[in-house]
Amino acid sequence: MSLFGFFKRQTSAPVARERLQVLLAHERTVVGPHSDLVAILREEIMAVIAKHMAVPQDKVQIKMDRGASVSTLEVDIEIPASVVGLRPAA
Amino acid sequence: MSLFGFFKRQTSAPVARERLQVLLAHERTVVGPHSDLVAILREEIMAVIAKHMAVPQDKVQIKMDRGASVSTLEVDIEIPASVVGLRPAA
Repeated sequence: MSLFGFFKRQTSAPVARERLQVLLAHERTVVGPHSDLVAILREEIMAVIAKHMAVPQDKVQIKMDRGASVSTLEVDIEIPASVVGLRPAA
Repeated sequence: MSLFGFFKRQTSAPVARERLQVLLAHERTVVGPHSDLVAILREEIMAVIAKHMAVPQDKVQIKMDRGASVSTLEVDIEIPASVVGLRPAA
């Protein structure tokens, strides 16, 4: 199984658009001080992306799973063709 | 194939440690103004993570692939047990 296979499984629609996907997994052996890391990084990574492009809120899908030993986050952003150019960094 | 299967395939070692994995894919139909997005986000996401924990440089694996239509980034960080506590946000 490859990472690229996962990303490509959703690319069959012949629509001209861009997509940005972010997957994050935090694996830990004990419940420790980093237990909220995925939730924290979710907010901060979304802020980083929003610095560079207008993120259409209705085109963002976020899935989060906080398990006992592995927490995962999946963010899928469909970028409309109308979004032109990178925003300058703040 | 599931995302969780990908993340779990590397968890067999019975070592007490934490791991943070970040996968990023940028899919585009034409070469446009976002063509360097993955490289830009790589630097900024690493900075976001470093705000919260001491990232041991020798325990970071980064794979980046810039294709014509899909660019991907994979970051795998092994967090040593000696790293205690979340850093306060800057």
